[in-house]
Amino acid sequence: MFSSGSIEGLIRAFMAFPGVGRRSAQRMVYHLMADPHSRITALVEALTTVEARVRRCRQCNNLSEEELCPVCADPRRDPTIVCVVAEPRDLEAIEATGSFRGLYHVLGGLLSPLDGIGPKDLACDSLVSRAASGRGEIILALSSTVEAEATASYLLDLLKPLPVKVTRLARGIPAGGSLEYLDPRTLSQAVLGRKEA
Amino acid sequence: MFSSGSIEGLIRAFMAFPGVGRRSAQRMVYHLMADPHSRITALVEALTTVEARVRRCRQCNNLSEEELCPVCADPRRDPTIVCVVAEPRDLEAIEATGSFRGLYHVLGGLLSPLDGIGPKDLACDSLVSRAASGRGEIILALSSTVEAEATASYLLDLLKPLPVKVTRLARGIPAGGSLEYLDPRTLSQAVLGRKEA
Repeated sequence: MFSSGSIEGLIRAFMAFPGVGRRSAQRMVYHLMADPHSRITALVEALTTVEARVRRCRQCNNLSEEELCPVCADPRRDPTIVCVVAEPRDLEAIEATGSFRGLYHVLGGLLSPLDGIGPKDLACDSLVSRAASGRGEIILALSSTVEAEATASYLLDLLKPLPVKVTRLARGIPAGGSLEYLDPRTLSQAVLGRKEA
Repeated sequence: MFSSGSIEGLIRAFMAFPGVGRRSAQRMVYHLMADPHSRITALVEALTTVEARVRRCRQCNNLSEEELCPVCADPRRDPTIVCVVAEPRDLEAIEATGSFRGLYHVLGGLLSPLDGIGPKDLACDSLVSRAASGRGEIILALSSTVEAEATASYLLDLLKPLPVKVTRLARGIPAGGSLEYLDPRTLSQAVLGRKEA
């Protein structure tokens, strides 16, 4: 590799991002080097601003610039329904649907013993406190992966003794999904979860 | 869009990179936010180090941490052959072949009137000075795009009066290329440029 030391260092820093390989990282570095002073300054400023301003919402653990995130601070949201998600991006995906008007609880990940991520690394205790203090519904809005299923069943055990209704997202045919191309698991979940027409 | 102001700013900063869309930029931001202090600090440090240290080689316009880049500073390189490339990444691609032992000249782009990039924006004058001061060979190692062809013919006109031999990269069948799948232009160039066996 011919790059000078500091350029190689920056290429490696970009390669730390998920989905960014050596070639993409090189393109990013060369993009910056085409006008280094203005481009690097702008990126450093955006990074340091985020680092200085963004923290975790005191109530739901979402990313936020205030003590309460915009969702928790919004008085029009229904505080009796709390939607539990793994990451802030899941929260954004649900917000983008425009159909949920309750609050959220961001776990900050999923249980993954192989990666050393246990209950202590997730916002489980604060979820139990929230569930214990109010009566209402808690929606476990987790993916359908092995880690997500394990996390959901762990949370179900924690929440069972509490005076809340715990629900999970519906499983079935995705919108626009064609029956013949569905995988057998999705199709069997769709049959098991059938509803009266 | 739900993101807070500074996160949105960082997403936009990442979207300025070539090939990075909104979704990839969001993934990059969330990757940083999983451990913001150490990850942002490391990236900012890599960026500011590059900005502080990397400049243009005095002789060939390549990126360098010293006044002369590693290639120009290497006494084993043949100074009578200068390979003209558009960008530092082209130089790296040729270095990676291990078969060229001359020096380089990095133009810093290609002529592109539509983007407002004219001869003054490229390192053309310094190339003419180098060509005028030595006798030897100048290889125009440019791509086969419209901008590259225009740049090559502009440089040919500049270099014609000077006591140097100007050459261009061979055109023909790429290594491993199958004749039946070649585009007609490549194939006709391969026929026109045929060599005695």
